[in-house]
Amino acid sequence: MSNETQIRGVLDELTAAAKSKDLDRLMRCYARDVVEFDVMPPLQSDFEKTRSNWKMCFDMTEGPVGYDLSKATIIADDELAMAYGLSHFVADDKKDHKHNDFWIRFTAGFKKVDGTWKIVHEHDSFPIDMETNKPRMDLKPS
Amino acid sequence: MSNETQIRGVLDELTAAAKSKDLDRLMRCYARDVVEFDVMPPLQSDFEKTRSNWKMCFDMTEGPVGYDLSKATIIADDELAMAYGLSHFVADDKKDHKHNDFWIRFTAGFKKVDGTWKIVHEHDSFPIDMETNKPRMDLKPS
Repeated sequence: MSNETQIRGVLDELTAAAKSKDLDRLMRCYARDVVEFDVMPPLQSDFEKTRSNWKMCFDMTEGPVGYDLSKATIIADDELAMAYGLSHFVADDKKDHKHNDFWIRFTAGFKKVDGTWKIVHEHDSFPIDMETNKPRMDLKPS
Repeated sequence: MSNETQIRGVLDELTAAAKSKDLDRLMRCYARDVVEFDVMPPLQSDFEKTRSNWKMCFDMTEGPVGYDLSKATIIADDELAMAYGLSHFVADDKKDHKHNDFWIRFTAGFKKVDGTWKIVHEHDSFPIDMETNKPRMDLKPS
């Protein structure tokens, strides 16, 4: 199996784990020393904080979390790989039943850990409108 | 020269070009097909939009643009490399003379183009406080 196909497999695994809200399965995609730049503060998160952010996401939403990374671009070398693209996040708030439908900028770096590709770095964000000082969570890919 | 040292050289070049507001020198760090996720909208920018965003940054500020990437982590394979970390952005607004001093989450991917490392992907962002719906531009590394 090519490295690119293996990375696609990790992204599919992330998506499937988010859909079934399986936190342990999801966190097996990450290296123990992952450096995460999440949508939410702090500036950077470690493995445990990444886990607790995902847990909060699962707890705050009702039903499956749609997290589509199928359109991500993948570049793979022998020991290092990257994926980046717009991830489509779809989930319903438990509290007010609001339907969330966002496009989040997603970047990830992967290294082989004991022969298996793991996410060593992830960066997720919304762009900021500098005039209103607010995130643009309404933008869709053109 | 190791690949890691060469990538460090590209980051130093970016920093030097920002400091001297040399747009052509800065854009030579980027591949023509770069995909940029900038702090500002849109969701993603191409080479020309990346150039115009940097031009706007240079035009809106007085004096040099401090853009320190010296603490970035670098991972380099033979044909693909990544850098990520907190970039320290310091510049004065031309309009109201406000002193900006931000820490921005920075991620970049590099590929060798005709033997020279170029940025093929960059992702810059601030985290969003979901309760206030505002970016946290005040956070510093702990």
